[in-house]
Amino acid sequence: METGGSSESPAEPKKGKTKTPRKPNESLLKQKSPAEFFAENKNIAGFDNPGKCLYTTVRELVENSLDSAESISELPLVEVTIEEIRKSQFNSMIGLVDRERVDEELYDDYETAKAREKRLAKEARAQETQAKNATLGKKVKEPSVSKGMKGRGEASFYKVTCKDNGRGMPHDDIPNMFGRVLSGTKYGLKQTRGKFGLGAKMALIWSKMSTGLPIEISSSMRGQNYTSFCRLDIDIQRNIPHIHVHEKRDNMNRWHGAEIQVVIEGNWTTYRSKILHYMRQMAVITPYAQFLFKFVSDTPEKNVTIRFARRTDVMPPVPLETKHHPSSVDLLLIKRLIAETSKQNLLQFLQHEFVNIPKAYAERLIGEMGPEFNPKMPVKSLTSQQIVRIHQLFRQAKFDDPSGDCLSPAGEYNLRLGIIKELHPDMVATYSGSAQVFEGHPFIVEAGVSVGGKDVKQGLNIFRFANRIPLLFEQGADVVTRTVLKRINWGSYKINHIQDRIGVFVSIVSTKIPFKGTGKEYIGDDITEISTAVKSAIQQCCIQLKSKIVKRMQAREQQERKRNLSISQMLQVLCMMF
Amino acid sequence: METGGSSESPAEPKKGKTKTPRKPNESLLKQKSPAEFFAENKNIAGFDNPGKCLYTTVRELVENSLDSAESISELPLVEVTIEEIRKSQFNSMIGLVDRERVDEELYDDYETAKAREKRLAKEARAQETQAKNATLGKKVKEPSVSKGMKGRGEASFYKVTCKDNGRGMPHDDIPNMFGRVLSGTKYGLKQTRGKFGLGAKMALIWSKMSTGLPIEISSSMRGQNYTSFCRLDIDIQRNIPHIHVHEKRDNMNRWHGAEIQVVIEGNWTTYRSKILHYMRQMAVITPYAQFLFKFVSDTPEKNVTIRFARRTDVMPPVPLETKHHPSSVDLLLIKRLIAETSKQNLLQFLQHEFVNIPKAYAERLIGEMGPEFNPKMPVKSLTSQQIVRIHQLFRQAKFDDPSGDCLSPAGEYNLRLGIIKELHPDMVATYSGSAQVFEGHPFIVEAGVSVGGKDVKQGLNIFRFANRIPLLFEQGADVVTRTVLKRINWGSYKINHIQDRIGVFVSIVSTKIPFKGTGKEYIGDDITEISTAVKSAIQQCCIQLKSKIVKRMQAREQQERKRNLSISQMLQVLCMMF
Repeated sequence: METGGSSESPAEPKKGKTKTPRKPNESLLKQKSPAEFFAENKNIAGFDNPGKCLYTTVRELVENSLDSAESISELPLVEVTIEEIRKSQFNSMIGLVDRERVDEELYDDYETAKAREKRLAKEARAQETQAKNATLGKKVKEPSVSKGMKGRGEASFYKVTCKDNGRGMPHDDIPNMFGRVLSGTKYGLKQTRGKFGLGAKMALIWSKMSTGLPIEISSSMRGQNYTSFCRLDIDIQRNIPHIHVHEKRDNMNRWHGAEIQVVIEGNWTTYRSKILHYMRQMAVITPYAQFLFKFVSDTPEKNVTIRFARRTDVMPPVPLETKHHPSSVDLLLIKRLIAETSKQNLLQFLQHEFVNIPKAYAERLIGEMGPEFNPKMPVKSLTSQQIVRIHQLFRQAKFDDPSGDCLSPAGEYNLRLGIIKELHPDMVATYSGSAQVFEGHPFIVEAGVSVGGKDVKQGLNIFRFANRIPLLFEQGADVVTRTVLKRINWGSYKINHIQDRIGVFVSIVSTKIPFKGTGKEYIGDDITEISTAVKSAIQQCCIQLKSKIVKRMQAREQQERKRNLSISQMLQVLCMMF
Repeated sequence: METGGSSESPAEPKKGKTKTPRKPNESLLKQKSPAEFFAENKNIAGFDNPGKCLYTTVRELVENSLDSAESISELPLVEVTIEEIRKSQFNSMIGLVDRERVDEELYDDYETAKAREKRLAKEARAQETQAKNATLGKKVKEPSVSKGMKGRGEASFYKVTCKDNGRGMPHDDIPNMFGRVLSGTKYGLKQTRGKFGLGAKMALIWSKMSTGLPIEISSSMRGQNYTSFCRLDIDIQRNIPHIHVHEKRDNMNRWHGAEIQVVIEGNWTTYRSKILHYMRQMAVITPYAQFLFKFVSDTPEKNVTIRFARRTDVMPPVPLETKHHPSSVDLLLIKRLIAETSKQNLLQFLQHEFVNIPKAYAERLIGEMGPEFNPKMPVKSLTSQQIVRIHQLFRQAKFDDPSGDCLSPAGEYNLRLGIIKELHPDMVATYSGSAQVFEGHPFIVEAGVSVGGKDVKQGLNIFRFANRIPLLFEQGADVVTRTVLKRINWGSYKINHIQDRIGVFVSIVSTKIPFKGTGKEYIGDDITEISTAVKSAIQQCCIQLKSKIVKRMQAREQQERKRNLSISQMLQVLCMMF
């Protein structure tokens, strides 16, 4: 603690630095809360810079909304609005009087008269040179930005609102769901859109860092006659919610769902295209959802309104929570399962807390463990050594592969529909693989390949999805990119991967996506089972396309032959006429 | 909690799943401890797979040791031993009886007689084809590995020990320093080797997941007549240390330092070269330290012993804790500083809690803030709005750049020495830049370029260091790699970057290294100040080298001319003789 710390310092004895020299053996230990950790390492969760923060805030809110609607089998309806807020607007929002500059020389962009003269002269010279070079056809460098302009400058603020028709949240849970890092609902073993389970909490931490404004949540659950309204921020040092308002309001329309609103610093200019790509790709993989995206500013020509319409009522099944596969568990997890189980003895534990251990097989496994094990022994009495023995046997023994029943792939129908509705391609082929397994985790790969369409560039356009969310960053090292670029012989399917406008869509779902990279933005290329499945799924699409392409070519040839034939007939007729 | 949970379940009501269907509005909220978060996302801290876990464990321990010795201005002496442990050894270590297989069919690598016959026939056919192809000079594919062999198989265990002559730890702090995630000593604002401050705690979490064995710590501080011994593991759910032994023992030799021992699963085969590269590069950047590295196994030919000798007593200064620069702080940080300060009024706060705000400047800033601010106002009474106003002014106002006094670069002398001692190059040039700044954070770039030497490949060999630790992964996107490959015109310095064997060494130190990527393995190429400084430092080295190269070329030409001259003289003499 600070020496002479005031009574207003935080309640727990954390952090602080001492200016007096330390005694050599004095404790140097300080504690950090999880919220502080993520505030300081916010790039882990995709909050690298203001632009990326805006992007990640949008996606976290959208993905929460989709999960929420799907969890109650409701066709999702998600409305996202990004409202640009000028600094003066922002200041009046927080009740701060906008102030004119008085002491001009205090500011970083202040120029002395002399510096101004110098700069103008330099710019004039630069323009001259540029004009000369331009006439000579030389490449022209952009003039370098002056110091005051770069990096710092004015911040841009945005109010991000996301409204859905999902499950909503229990009234009393709301504060902890937003104001406590590492508190969440997505911690079971199942396919989930979330990445770290940090979700909207990181958006709140970022708003706290950049604007200091609280988050606002409205929520109502099915059949509730009230709406919960909550305005809160987070006490970062203690990782607890700091509640401003938490009350029940009338729910006249019997609405259910959630509406989250957060005001953050951002950068629309640099991340505009990423955000729009994200929304479009989400529309591809979620054709049963309706999205309304709006960007609103004082400059009407910057405004954007896009509606991604729902094209089907067919929704993938809700992903199911499943039990662990014995090949996939580590020592720690076995211990946790033992601590948490309600089963009394070892036999019941093996049989009921894992998939693919039938009773007879559990008995054989226990027999193999050794004489000090028996089916009836209380599972909570197992020693550390005995647990290691079980772990070793799990790693070596053979178990049936886990089934993919707990997974919820987009579905071939939906993937195809999504591609057609958003890209309008000339041709499309899709394929849905059966469930496979890596390290005890089930996964399913689905793929689509399209040729032609709108807004598709020449060459290979790759769209990657993991647990039905688009991956937009760190494309280079991804298993899909590598497979598409290096392991598919496009020519052999009559596809010209340089000239044609090809879309390649690969969607992978699993209870454990083996992400690599910060912010979990790509899937590594080091798991053979996955790379083989990706390759095979794309090939299946290519085979379908090839037969279509061949048919089309044949049809064209036939037409050509017919035309040639009719020309020669005409010539014959002409000849006969003269 | 589990329905019917037993009395042995963990003390706090965390986690657990219910098998009965949930009521629609029931709370779904679960809590996770920071230790659980990192156990589940251990790749964030560089613990991706057993091989990488072994590597990261070594580096965390080595870096802690260096920091510890340097913090008391002791020339570091670090001994690392990796001892391979066979499974039967491991089992006897934990008191588990090694068991022969009984029920053969239970095992994943079991083959039925029929399958065996089939496999042997297939292998025979493969060998035949291979032999045929070999005689025809065709490329031969490796036979694919059979299912039982891949991935799972036998685990390899390693006992990693790291001993140093550093500060040691206060007896009572030891349990929390190892057994509590987000508890540490490196949280001030200063240049530090650590990445997330997770250090040895992640090694402990990994040992808990893979071997279940506790960590052992011996430690003594200067002048202590006892050694602290502690054996502990971590209660992951509660994020608290679980102490097995914690006692004071005799310290006959008046030793000070720490010795950490942990038993983990790993993979020496795949990470051997990474670990040895790491040790060598650490020796380059730390020539004032002595390292002894040993790998010990039952197979004597696998054993490794390398001593990296100390070559100088000149140690860089200890990095100093510094105050924040006003251009670098966010809203949250200002609030924290206000909560923690011992200063009473706004003027004192501005003047003493930041660098580069002298008293007169603080007064001008306060004047600019507006009429409701005054120098004497109690800093703890500032409203949220007023803090936003201060933050906005901090972003726009001009401040002197922070000085690099708090930084501790390797030093040109040490870098040069390190390169010479480890690479023995034909030529070397080094350069140490002055302190510069990005976003309010001071940084220093030092560089070295060598030509020739031992164990250097043809072409460009890049060695990257951040806060004096080697960076070995994710080289591609790094600012140093990009600069070296794209922005240096090697030819103009008479260096042939294809033919010559060139070593490029760049060391960046800062109070904030702008890392990107998981595990903080590279520095992004998006900060102009840094990329410019890197380019300029390398160019300075190249200029030095060029003059050496030119001199050498001239010398060679002169010699040649002399030789030619002497030959012609000899010829003349000969002519005269006949």
